[in-house]
Amino acid sequence: MSPAASGPLPARRIGIDVGGTKALGVAIDRAACLLDEQRRPTPRGPASVVALLDTLSALARDLGAGGVVGVGVPGLVTSAGVLRAAPNLDGVADLAVADLLSERLGYAVTVDNDATCAAVAEHELGVARGMRDVVLVTLGTGIGGAVISDGAVRRGSNGFAGEFGHMVVDPDGPMCPCGRNGCWERYASGEGLTRLSREAALAGRLDGPLASTHADPGAVGGEDVERWARAGDGEALAVIDEFCRWVALGLANLTNALDPRMLVVGGGLSAGADLLRGPIRHWLAELLYQSHLRPLPIVEFAELGERAGAIGAALLAGGADGRGVD
Amino acid sequence: MSPAASGPLPARRIGIDVGGTKALGVAIDRAACLLDEQRRPTPRGPASVVALLDTLSALARDLGAGGVVGVGVPGLVTSAGVLRAAPNLDGVADLAVADLLSERLGYAVTVDNDATCAAVAEHELGVARGMRDVVLVTLGTGIGGAVISDGAVRRGSNGFAGEFGHMVVDPDGPMCPCGRNGCWERYASGEGLTRLSREAALAGRLDGPLASTHADPGAVGGEDVERWARAGDGEALAVIDEFCRWVALGLANLTNALDPRMLVVGGGLSAGADLLRGPIRHWLAELLYQSHLRPLPIVEFAELGERAGAIGAALLAGGADGRGVD
Repeated sequence: MSPAASGPLPARRIGIDVGGTKALGVAIDRAACLLDEQRRPTPRGPASVVALLDTLSALARDLGAGGVVGVGVPGLVTSAGVLRAAPNLDGVADLAVADLLSERLGYAVTVDNDATCAAVAEHELGVARGMRDVVLVTLGTGIGGAVISDGAVRRGSNGFAGEFGHMVVDPDGPMCPCGRNGCWERYASGEGLTRLSREAALAGRLDGPLASTHADPGAVGGEDVERWARAGDGEALAVIDEFCRWVALGLANLTNALDPRMLVVGGGLSAGADLLRGPIRHWLAELLYQSHLRPLPIVEFAELGERAGAIGAALLAGGADGRGVD
Repeated sequence: MSPAASGPLPARRIGIDVGGTKALGVAIDRAACLLDEQRRPTPRGPASVVALLDTLSALARDLGAGGVVGVGVPGLVTSAGVLRAAPNLDGVADLAVADLLSERLGYAVTVDNDATCAAVAEHELGVARGMRDVVLVTLGTGIGGAVISDGAVRRGSNGFAGEFGHMVVDPDGPMCPCGRNGCWERYASGEGLTRLSREAALAGRLDGPLASTHADPGAVGGEDVERWARAGDGEALAVIDEFCRWVALGLANLTNALDPRMLVVGGGLSAGADLLRGPIRHWLAELLYQSHLRPLPIVEFAELGERAGAIGAALLAGGADGRGVD
């Protein structure tokens, strides 16, 4: 799966990050500097699987691939580049993305989980440079993640490690589309923030900003609460605090299990770092086992922003195998 | 910390596993065959720290240590062999076990977390031989654990990885002595089974066996329910099933995060493998994300029994560093 695992780095590496709404492609040079960037909407609807493969191969060609293309996809990806399941991509199940794209393009394509790609990028070029033990979580529509232990990404026996979003943190909690109750993703994702915000609005815990903005309590979203909180509204800040407690609860569980030096928060919600950083750190100290007897892990926000996944996919295609050396 | 990290294996290696009630010591030869085994009660009470060190050094001497001694202790152990905290050992906090024992014995002593030791033993000699990705949980009074990824034990940045017992799985659950609510240990340990059993007894869900044995509902223990379940009592089997759902919930969370090929259940409760195996496997398939699209991890019970920790401590002292090669 690594066409250039040895030998000199190729001059141009292409990475594509496939999200639920768009595919973002980048071309980077040997020094991992950005040469080009392009976006396409992610195809949706009945014929979307073929359209998705067409979109990705066109994107790779437009970015000038010379045989080094990596793709990050959201879901369970086997080590052979088969996407087993992808809840946010229409109709995708057991799709041999690596093989099918390789056929279309005429050379090997590397396919990995999108959060794994983001972790590789943040570990090699971003906020986690030089860290040996890192847990990365991507808080977006859902939650993805990746584990770096002793300097290398640990993918697990099938390549499925890092599915933190479906850790059950409250067996009596709200139903998750995955079929279980109280998955972490129901609380600590973008959808989780919206759910908590709407509950607060309907329970009268956001009456101040609702009155002053004439907003519909049943239509309040996470972005409304973020905006009100940034303006200093106490009720909105309380909802942000509740959300951060849930984020920290999962991060504390992962720290109990893995003892990382750094926790990296990526994904769409990382744009709210200014609001989230303080309360997440506060609740992490509250919720971590024996936190008074150990160094707290550093909580950082992803540095490469929305490009992390695409850059990581390019790095993996160009020979980085995420396994490092230990 | 590894006095014999290179060179030939010593002819005699000593390992001691310190539990809340007893210290179990073993001597093993180059082939890891058992040469000797001894037990001492773990000192309790006010002067127990000095008494504990005396006990351990006497045990090492009696087992014929020639400079290769490893000790497994329950709690957070730094990579320098300092026991930061040990809830089940009286008065122990920030105890430099490795240094203090080394002073008494006159040679370096290796100290590690007891579940880490057990994982090393099961990985090198027991049920997880040859497995590259393993999660081990010890279900005893509390819960300990260890992570093996890509063939090596992953200790985390401070050596504290594997504290699975304090992952919060129900924020509204019962208070844990650690100060949080709903830690996994409140449900899936020996104490958890007793708590679930007593709740069932007091709620009238064990009326059959209570009537026929004239037992006091408020004094029912996990071992009573295990005994009744083994005799085929349906009410007791339902409590075992409830317990196994909690065990599986934590195992599913860990599998989502780490994707191990094998889950090893050790600790005192592993003696109930005959009762627990089936329901744990059933609930794991129910609770694991996308379990229909992936191989279920193998659920096995520790093979080395109560000696696993002591044998693993001896292996670590004799040069195994638990990091393997990847």
